[in-house]
Amino acid sequence: MHYQEMSRTELQALHEKLTAEYRSAQALSLHLDMSRGKPEPAQLDLSAGLLNILNSDCSFTAENGMDCRNYGGLEGIPEARRLFAEMLDIAPDEIIVGGNSSLTMMYDAIARCMLHGVDDRCPPWASQSPIKFLCPCPGYDRHFAICEYFGIGMIPIPMTPTGPDMDKVEHWVGSDPTVKGIWCVPKYSNPQGITYSDETVRRFAALRPAAADFRIFWDDAYAVHHLTDEGDHLLNIMEECKARGSQDMLYIFASTSKISFAGAGVAMMAASVENIRYITRCMAMQTISYDKLNQLRHVRFYKNLDGIRAHMLKHREIIRPKFDLMFERFRELRADGIADFTEPNGGYFIALMTLNGCARRVVQLCREAGVTLTGAGACFPYGHDPYDSCLRIAPTYPPLEDLRTAADILCLCVRLASVEQLLKD
Amino acid sequence: MHYQEMSRTELQALHEKLTAEYRSAQALSLHLDMSRGKPEPAQLDLSAGLLNILNSDCSFTAENGMDCRNYGGLEGIPEARRLFAEMLDIAPDEIIVGGNSSLTMMYDAIARCMLHGVDDRCPPWASQSPIKFLCPCPGYDRHFAICEYFGIGMIPIPMTPTGPDMDKVEHWVGSDPTVKGIWCVPKYSNPQGITYSDETVRRFAALRPAAADFRIFWDDAYAVHHLTDEGDHLLNIMEECKARGSQDMLYIFASTSKISFAGAGVAMMAASVENIRYITRCMAMQTISYDKLNQLRHVRFYKNLDGIRAHMLKHREIIRPKFDLMFERFRELRADGIADFTEPNGGYFIALMTLNGCARRVVQLCREAGVTLTGAGACFPYGHDPYDSCLRIAPTYPPLEDLRTAADILCLCVRLASVEQLLKD
Repeated sequence: MHYQEMSRTELQALHEKLTAEYRSAQALSLHLDMSRGKPEPAQLDLSAGLLNILNSDCSFTAENGMDCRNYGGLEGIPEARRLFAEMLDIAPDEIIVGGNSSLTMMYDAIARCMLHGVDDRCPPWASQSPIKFLCPCPGYDRHFAICEYFGIGMIPIPMTPTGPDMDKVEHWVGSDPTVKGIWCVPKYSNPQGITYSDETVRRFAALRPAAADFRIFWDDAYAVHHLTDEGDHLLNIMEECKARGSQDMLYIFASTSKISFAGAGVAMMAASVENIRYITRCMAMQTISYDKLNQLRHVRFYKNLDGIRAHMLKHREIIRPKFDLMFERFRELRADGIADFTEPNGGYFIALMTLNGCARRVVQLCREAGVTLTGAGACFPYGHDPYDSCLRIAPTYPPLEDLRTAADILCLCVRLASVEQLLKD
Repeated sequence: MHYQEMSRTELQALHEKLTAEYRSAQALSLHLDMSRGKPEPAQLDLSAGLLNILNSDCSFTAENGMDCRNYGGLEGIPEARRLFAEMLDIAPDEIIVGGNSSLTMMYDAIARCMLHGVDDRCPPWASQSPIKFLCPCPGYDRHFAICEYFGIGMIPIPMTPTGPDMDKVEHWVGSDPTVKGIWCVPKYSNPQGITYSDETVRRFAALRPAAADFRIFWDDAYAVHHLTDEGDHLLNIMEECKARGSQDMLYIFASTSKISFAGAGVAMMAASVENIRYITRCMAMQTISYDKLNQLRHVRFYKNLDGIRAHMLKHREIIRPKFDLMFERFRELRADGIADFTEPNGGYFIALMTLNGCARRVVQLCREAGVTLTGAGACFPYGHDPYDSCLRIAPTYPPLEDLRTAADILCLCVRLASVEQLLKD
């Protein structure tokens, strides 16, 4: 029965019953964490062979003759550039293979634009302040944190089932020269798991920005992270941009953090050859080269895109049941009319939408019952969820058994918060 | 016989003889590189065991229970902080163990100060522009490049045998609030190999800057890189600062690039606990964590400071003969009155001082005979060596036999350039 159809008396009875259940749950003194998109240890074990693939008997020489144990090769070793270019379906000279964190490459890109501009012609963003970014939301909290840290204004753009509301994006980008960028997680978006439609990608490539130094920050974090056989297909934005001559507007980011090791993988940035030329020139001030040995490890271990794909199937075997479990529980909430959610075909997150005004309360109830969720509001600029209804669920880290318990408590808390809310009305 | 004491006729005869020798050298079509302080392959082989010390049978758990294959631990794993704190003789909570490049940590520190200031109280350096750095020189070209890139004015400070001219340092720092920093390589300085005297270190610690947001950039790149049994002793500046309450003025940097692998080692930044707290808060915007697996490799391989010291003796065995060779040749130049040089007890460089006006010509002559030197002027802000006399010699990379040939040609070029110069007078 839909909660909304219940009488006040029925709701009160339900409240009593749920409160009793909640007290029992609290008595378990649990410590479960669904707050961040972390791989579980069994996933990390899958790449154990990567760790000792280099040893004293092997060559450390990259294809271009460079010793990976010594300085040099700022843009990454050729075989790593080729492998990850294949993964992102771009050309090897359109990619820089960097250090251990794509977040760092994004942060550094913004810091570079702030202090030095997007190229030799445009003035630094900091000299044009205040500037703004468009922030499709719900979105990735660490993207928004970078903007806030740099004092970049954030304009929320609603997400739709096909990606950001492109009418709004086109309006802002086309008319406001202080809009310098937009954050996108185009495939299996964080937290909804939405993949941008072909039309959305084409409209991005066709943007005609009012600002000469506007950039799309295309965080392709989950390019090969499918949960289903078919997966989603994301149109190749670089090709679409090239067809329109707009390729300099595009920065693409990715990493192997959820392929090999979280925080000990390899990150990359893709962009037009002209952008790459400018960026490597700037990056040469910041470092002599990234860790080429770790790049070499990754190439030797995964070999090629098929190797990466086969590896991702093993990840999927481990995490798919966790997503299925959550979907099953969340369907019950949906049937009761107190929540909705996305059922993504990949990525690391599920967005659970509660009744308006309930998200904060659910996080609080969960916390007080030993289950840590991502803070309510985290998926919105300045932590402000206008409806207080979006919860980011990260089911990958806890073992399946723990997750079952955590899901029970989460659903109980959603029910309890919903009844509380309905009783208020 | 001192060249300066030769008659014009003698010089002309010598010029003819040297020119013939130079033509023979050119005919060899050599390709030798003494331009950068890179370890040679045999040095890199010393750390081969580091590469496969982690494998599927071992634990990946840091002392604090953190899985080094997963996200987290921004400030570095405790055992790495302890090891490198011991190396730098500071406390473990005064150090951040970072990624693969201390240059990146220095660049990031400056970018942070530019955009966000040194702490929560002081305004960003960029908002106080133009600002300046003191640059003891000859010094490290990449330090100066960072300043130039950020538009930070550079004031050359002459080096003395005991470190930078401290009268000048005290004058500038004490009187000019736009002076925000100073670059120091306090031990086995690049390129002279000078270690700052105890008095110099104490005067640094006792600085009373006109700017509240002045910082000493103490690049302790060669902390354990001795060439002799005794080595040089550098006074502990952190202790000296603490004794005077000036510890917030100090940033220390170091790395294992010339201990383990160049560009694939571990970098670190040390500072007061208050600075570390502010910096990690800022760094959390830029990354979730650095590569903890590489930190774990280093700790497991070197174990403790004695392990590092024993390892550095092996490096010394390989590179010491190269320095000795250069010293021997350079002594001949000195005997002829056409060059002077430092004879450092550690580090990676020798500064060869030619007659005034000869350095550029020597680099050109060497290049045209197939020997690459660091560009003349590189050791000075804006590439401007006021006397055109300083050459940075990096003897470590070429094998000893090649180095012998390169030294022959270098000395020949110094002789030839000197005669040319004397004939001009």
